[in-house]
Amino acid sequence: MEIHTVPIIPKGCAVVTKPFMFEKPLGMRDTLPMLYETKVSVRNKMSDEIKKWGYQFIETPALEYYETIGEASAILDQQLFKLLDAQGHTLVLRPDMTAPIARVAASKLLKQQIPLRLAYSANVYRAQQREGGRPAEFEQIGIECIGNKSISADAEMIALLTDVLKAAGLEDFKISIGHIGFLQEFFLSILGTEERASVLRKLLYEKNYVGFREHVKSLPLSSIDKQRLIEFISLRGSEGTLSKAMALLENGKGQDSLDELRELAVQLKEFGVDQYVNLDLTLVSHMSYYTGTLFEVYAGQVGSPIGNGGRYDNLLEKFGWDASATGFAIRVDRLAEALGEPSQLIAPECILFSPERRAEALAFAKSKRLEGKRITIQDITVVQNVDAFTRTFSDVHMFVGNGGNGQDE
Amino acid sequence: MEIHTVPIIPKGCAVVTKPFMFEKPLGMRDTLPMLYETKVSVRNKMSDEIKKWGYQFIETPALEYYETIGEASAILDQQLFKLLDAQGHTLVLRPDMTAPIARVAASKLLKQQIPLRLAYSANVYRAQQREGGRPAEFEQIGIECIGNKSISADAEMIALLTDVLKAAGLEDFKISIGHIGFLQEFFLSILGTEERASVLRKLLYEKNYVGFREHVKSLPLSSIDKQRLIEFISLRGSEGTLSKAMALLENGKGQDSLDELRELAVQLKEFGVDQYVNLDLTLVSHMSYYTGTLFEVYAGQVGSPIGNGGRYDNLLEKFGWDASATGFAIRVDRLAEALGEPSQLIAPECILFSPERRAEALAFAKSKRLEGKRITIQDITVVQNVDAFTRTFSDVHMFVGNGGNGQDE
Repeated sequence: MEIHTVPIIPKGCAVVTKPFMFEKPLGMRDTLPMLYETKVSVRNKMSDEIKKWGYQFIETPALEYYETIGEASAILDQQLFKLLDAQGHTLVLRPDMTAPIARVAASKLLKQQIPLRLAYSANVYRAQQREGGRPAEFEQIGIECIGNKSISADAEMIALLTDVLKAAGLEDFKISIGHIGFLQEFFLSILGTEERASVLRKLLYEKNYVGFREHVKSLPLSSIDKQRLIEFISLRGSEGTLSKAMALLENGKGQDSLDELRELAVQLKEFGVDQYVNLDLTLVSHMSYYTGTLFEVYAGQVGSPIGNGGRYDNLLEKFGWDASATGFAIRVDRLAEALGEPSQLIAPECILFSPERRAEALAFAKSKRLEGKRITIQDITVVQNVDAFTRTFSDVHMFVGNGGNGQDE
Repeated sequence: MEIHTVPIIPKGCAVVTKPFMFEKPLGMRDTLPMLYETKVSVRNKMSDEIKKWGYQFIETPALEYYETIGEASAILDQQLFKLLDAQGHTLVLRPDMTAPIARVAASKLLKQQIPLRLAYSANVYRAQQREGGRPAEFEQIGIECIGNKSISADAEMIALLTDVLKAAGLEDFKISIGHIGFLQEFFLSILGTEERASVLRKLLYEKNYVGFREHVKSLPLSSIDKQRLIEFISLRGSEGTLSKAMALLENGKGQDSLDELRELAVQLKEFGVDQYVNLDLTLVSHMSYYTGTLFEVYAGQVGSPIGNGGRYDNLLEKFGWDASATGFAIRVDRLAEALGEPSQLIAPECILFSPERRAEALAFAKSKRLEGKRITIQDITVVQNVDAFTRTFSDVHMFVGNGGNGQDE
C-alpha cells in the first residue's frame, strides 16, 4: 500500500472563485455525451474492420522517454509536451503512435511473426501555440504493417483504409497518393542540393503552387529544367499522370518509383478501391519519416485530412531493426466531423419513486434492464425540479403514493 | 495548416544503440494483444451495464490546470505529473476523474438535469517513486451521481457497482462499507483534536490494528475512552455491528451516521445485493474528499481494492456549486487480474498468395470477411520464414502457383 496521510479538511469556509475554475489548458477539450457516443460507435466499427484484416491491437503508455520516442517522432520539438521525471529524464506525452509501435515491434516477442500487423486506438498530444486553434489532444485509429517490403503491403494499406472508412459510414472521400521517394529523387536530380529541394517541398506542403512557380523562376536553372519543375506540379489526377511524369525524367532517375506506382494502381483495381484514389505526385507530408508511397484522405467539407499514411522504411532502424514498414492513421475527431450530425441519442427512460414504493420501482427497473432498456431510478423526494429533470428522458414511470403503476402517465 | 519545414534526413548512417532504446518511464507499461482484448471486452460489458442504469459517458482532457484539478484532487502532490505550458501555467496529467467530472458538471449545461448521472472510462496518471511498483498509468471506469443527497443514491452506487462487476464476469467479490463521517465524529468526540484523529485514521488506513491499539494505550485518555477506541476497531462484519457501534456512543454523537447505514442496509436488501456487502466502520480511504458512506471492493486473490467509492458532499463547492455527490471507480487492471486468465484469443486465419493468384486471394479474403471472419492476406514472396509466420494463425489458405485452392492444405 502507498503511505498517505489522510487529512480531512474542514470544508465549511467560504468558496472563493479561482481564475482557472472552469478553464482547460490550450487545445484541451471536454467530450460531452453526444459526441462521446458518436466516437465510440465510429471507433468500434473501425476496430472491427481492422481486426477482420487480421491486425492485432496494442496499447502503449502516454508518457515515453524523450530520447526514445520524442526524437524518433516526426513531430516538431515545439509541439511536444515535455516534463521531467523524478530521475531527471525528459519525458514526452506521445505525439504520435508510429514511433511507440516501432519501439514495441522491435523490442518484443511479437517480432517472430513477420510481417507484423499491429493496430492502435489512442489519444496523441501536440502542444498548440494559440487559442482557438487545433486540438492539443486527439484520437487516432491506425495500423502499422512491419517487415513487408512489397507493393502488396502499400496496396493493403489503401484498401484497408477504404474499408475502414466505409465501415465507419463514410462514402464521400478521396485518397490522394503520392511518392516522396520519386519527388525527392526528381528534385535532387534537377536542384542538386537537399537545401533547395526542401524549399520546394515546403511550398508543396503548404499547397502554395503560386509560390512554387515564382520560386522556380528565381532559381539559377536552365529554362528546360525550370519547365520540368513547373510541369511537375501538374502531376495530379489519375489519368495520364504516370506517363506525363515519365516524360519529365532524365536518365531514368525516378523511374523505379513510377513503376511502383503503376503496379500499385493495378493492385488497387484488383482490390476494387480504384474509384476512391487519385494520384498526386506533388503530395508532401509533415511526417518526415516517409520514404516511398504516401497518402492523405480528404472527406466532404472537412478542410484538413481525416487520415494519412505511407511507407517508412528507415524508422525501425532507430530501434535496432532494419525492417521496412507502412501504415496509416485516421483522425477520429475529423472523421466524426465528416460524418456530420450524429443520429440523435435516444435518452434513457426514468423511474421516479417515493420511498414507500421503492421496492416496487427497483423490481420494475430490473425487469426493464433485462429487456435491454436503459433506465434511471430516482427518489422523487430529492428532485428539486421534477419538470426539468424528467424533460431529459424518453419516458417517465411514476411509482409515487397511490399514483402511477409504472405505466406512462 | 501548421507551418512545418519538411526535412528528409538521410537515414543511411550507422545505427547507434541508445541507452533508452526500448525502455519506458517508471511505471509505464505496454499492453499486448491478449490483455488488450481482455480489457476491451471487460470495458464494453461494464459500460453497457452503466448505460443501462441511465448514466451518460463523457471524456475530459488528459491535461488540466494544476490550480483547478491538481488542487481539487485527493492525490498527493508528489504523485502528480506536472509540466509547464507555453504561458507558464502548471499543468497536471489528471490523477483521477472525480475532480474533472466535477469541473464539467459545475460548468456545463448538463447542470440542468439534476440529479446528474455521469460516467467515464479513462486512464489516470500517478507518478511512482520506484521500479517494479505500481503502474503510473491505469484505466478507471466509474460513475458520479451529483445533486442527489439521499440514502437511495448511496444504495444505487453499491447496487450498480455490484451489477457492473457481475456484468464483467466477476462473482467472487465483497464490498466493505464504512462511514467516514461517523468515524470522524466518534474520534473527535473522544480525542478532541483533528491532529490526534488523523494519527488514528492513518493507522486504520494502513490496516495497522496492532499499532492502533498501542497508540490508543499511549494517549492521555480515561480508561473508558481507551476501551471505546479499542472496541471501535472490532466494528466490522454485518451482524450486530450497528448495535455494537450504537453502544459505544456518548451523547448520541454519530447516531445520525449509524441511522444512515441502517437505512442503507435496508435498501441494499431491496436491491438484492446484501450478500455482496460487509460493514466495516474502520474503513478509511486515501481519497480525502469523502464525507459520508464510503466503500472498497476486494476480489479473489487481488491484494489491493479493485474499486472504491463514496459520498463527497463538499467537492463541487470548489467549482462554485453547493451540490452533494457520490460515485465509484473500478481499476480495470486489477479487475482483469481478478478475472484470471482470459479465454485464449482465437487467432485470425491467413491467406498466403503468389502475385499471379493475388486477385483470386483477394476475392476469397473479401468473402471470408463478409462472413465475419478475421483474415490476414500476405504476399508469400516477402515472407522470410513461412513456417514461423503461419504458426501464429488459426488456419492457412494457400493461393500459390498451381498449388492450393483456398482450402486448408
